[in-house]
Amino acid sequence: MENKVIYIAGLGLIGGSLALGIRRDHPDYKILGYNRSDKSRNVALERGIVDEATADFKEFAPLADVIILAVPIKQTIEFIKALADMDLKDTVIITDAGSTKREIVEAGERYLAGKNVRFVGSHPMAGSHKSGAIAAEVNLFENAYYIFTPSRLTDASTIADMKVILSGLHARYIEIDAAEHDRVTSQISHFPHILAASLMEQAGDYASEHEMTNHFAAGGFRDMTRIAESEPGMWTSILLTNKAAVLERIDDFKNRLDGVAELISQNDADAIWNYFNHAKETRKEMNIHKRGGVESGFDIFVDVPDEEDVILEILELLRGTSLVNVHINEENREDINGILQISFKNIKDLEHAKKVISENTDYKVYVN
Amino acid sequence: MENKVIYIAGLGLIGGSLALGIRRDHPDYKILGYNRSDKSRNVALERGIVDEATADFKEFAPLADVIILAVPIKQTIEFIKALADMDLKDTVIITDAGSTKREIVEAGERYLAGKNVRFVGSHPMAGSHKSGAIAAEVNLFENAYYIFTPSRLTDASTIADMKVILSGLHARYIEIDAAEHDRVTSQISHFPHILAASLMEQAGDYASEHEMTNHFAAGGFRDMTRIAESEPGMWTSILLTNKAAVLERIDDFKNRLDGVAELISQNDADAIWNYFNHAKETRKEMNIHKRGGVESGFDIFVDVPDEEDVILEILELLRGTSLVNVHINEENREDINGILQISFKNIKDLEHAKKVISENTDYKVYVN
Repeated sequence: MENKVIYIAGLGLIGGSLALGIRRDHPDYKILGYNRSDKSRNVALERGIVDEATADFKEFAPLADVIILAVPIKQTIEFIKALADMDLKDTVIITDAGSTKREIVEAGERYLAGKNVRFVGSHPMAGSHKSGAIAAEVNLFENAYYIFTPSRLTDASTIADMKVILSGLHARYIEIDAAEHDRVTSQISHFPHILAASLMEQAGDYASEHEMTNHFAAGGFRDMTRIAESEPGMWTSILLTNKAAVLERIDDFKNRLDGVAELISQNDADAIWNYFNHAKETRKEMNIHKRGGVESGFDIFVDVPDEEDVILEILELLRGTSLVNVHINEENREDINGILQISFKNIKDLEHAKKVISENTDYKVYVN
Repeated sequence: MENKVIYIAGLGLIGGSLALGIRRDHPDYKILGYNRSDKSRNVALERGIVDEATADFKEFAPLADVIILAVPIKQTIEFIKALADMDLKDTVIITDAGSTKREIVEAGERYLAGKNVRFVGSHPMAGSHKSGAIAAEVNLFENAYYIFTPSRLTDASTIADMKVILSGLHARYIEIDAAEHDRVTSQISHFPHILAASLMEQAGDYASEHEMTNHFAAGGFRDMTRIAESEPGMWTSILLTNKAAVLERIDDFKNRLDGVAELISQNDADAIWNYFNHAKETRKEMNIHKRGGVESGFDIFVDVPDEEDVILEILELLRGTSLVNVHINEENREDINGILQISFKNIKDLEHAKKVISENTDYKVYVN
């Protein structure tokens, strides 16, 4: 079992980055790839992300020691079905990278039961605004959670073997029940996407009657609607494969809005103060300030004067770091931490930037 | 009227920064300050933010040519009432800095009518997570909107005079009806604060039953709840002085949530996709990514390789130009003209940038 064959279906950002991460610690592994469209397949071959690539999913499956399905949720389930009818290597590990887990794990248990395969659902919690093999990078999962959702087809060796195979990702591995995964992510990811999209639509409608709406939108609004620009297809699939949990969060939230409306109607200043203060304290306790994000960049805020060349002064200090975006928050300074916002690809560069800016300038540096 | 006397009530971040901004262009003005607590009053004196300071609001009011109330909303209204009974200079300008405007303007019209004063509500749209005179800074309002909400007590000279007095702020001045100000800010600021606080509370409650909630919360969630850490007292006052508009936004939003829940219940994938896509397109059109304000940005696109330090290489060529934003468009290379997007404050700098980049590099430069 030295020279394993890894077969990755889906050579987008996730599949491509998994391949690069696996290869970092296991240059001897053979990595095969499937992608329906030519584009990412060709990029993956050109970049050496995979050794060989196919447009026919069934072609490489029989050769694989590990099959990683990094395709959309519905296709993942279709591929699990297809694998059930194929002649695979004994004790092959079949795993996935889908954003919801219960339906995929149920499909695995249903279609793969009785076959000599090992199956474990998984969700590498990383992503970015980018997509495609062109955006794949070896550090994408560094310090990110790599969630395994064990099931009846996951034996004691499955997750242990996967951790060895994935060691080059430098991720944080964790096991959780599939349904619980879906409940937790409904709260911290799926439902917030509904909030962001609905707020964006509400503001858009309002702007058609109140023209200054667009102009006065500031930092807080921008932050709250950022994920409204996520990919519609992916989020449609997520909602439809996590219906019960999402609907329950929507219902709960409406009750909370009713509660706040009631306090406002009653002019209950003390209760409103307590409501805001409780939210503030809860967020502080949650300690999410400096945590690397699933979907967002790693941002620092530098309190600088609005002067020409101040960006250049800062960027010269950051020579060699992976900065992704530089923004001067000047449109409307409400609600933001300082004026110059710089986004990095990873936490390491963020920490480096914080250090060199603090050491070499008098500007205050904040990290949210 | 050469050496005006400016009286600023409230020497916190806003009042202190207004004083510094006024003084930048008018070092000859006398700036007097009021603050209830010793702390900011002493800091303001030590930092030279004000020439003299008092803990008795009434002490300096009769001396002032301009009275700026930069205190909480309720106290602003109390001070307007108090000023109505005082002997003030003829044609003194009374103005404020409150985050909601209708109730303050109504108080002005009610209590100050018939007196020989000029009154104009205003909302300098800046702020930060910092507070107190210690945080005051001369650049706080640079390029920020400074909103005037004229009323019956605002004559033709009032806003013109205020713009001269405030010229050192380098803000952008705009006039809007007070009630419309409150409606627009309910949508893009006040109601989003309710969403953020409620989401934070919901997640906090959920975490008590689902422990991984805190661990999996990532970038999107962090961005959406950032403003949940705002100051509870200020936001309580804002909600209570903008009740109708806020309640209307809550009600509207609940209907939107019902709509999404219905689509999910019906498994209507197309409609959910359209919902997300519409939100995405609306946000793109809103153009809040690179916004420098009312006018749209002046953007160039430079077709560069995705290499570290390429931003720096370009920016060194642009030394001295007024660039506002630098963004690496990595997500969709096929959709855009080149990968590096740079936004400028004006067309002159854009033209200059196009020229120097074309002359000094091999990168293609596009202007949309």
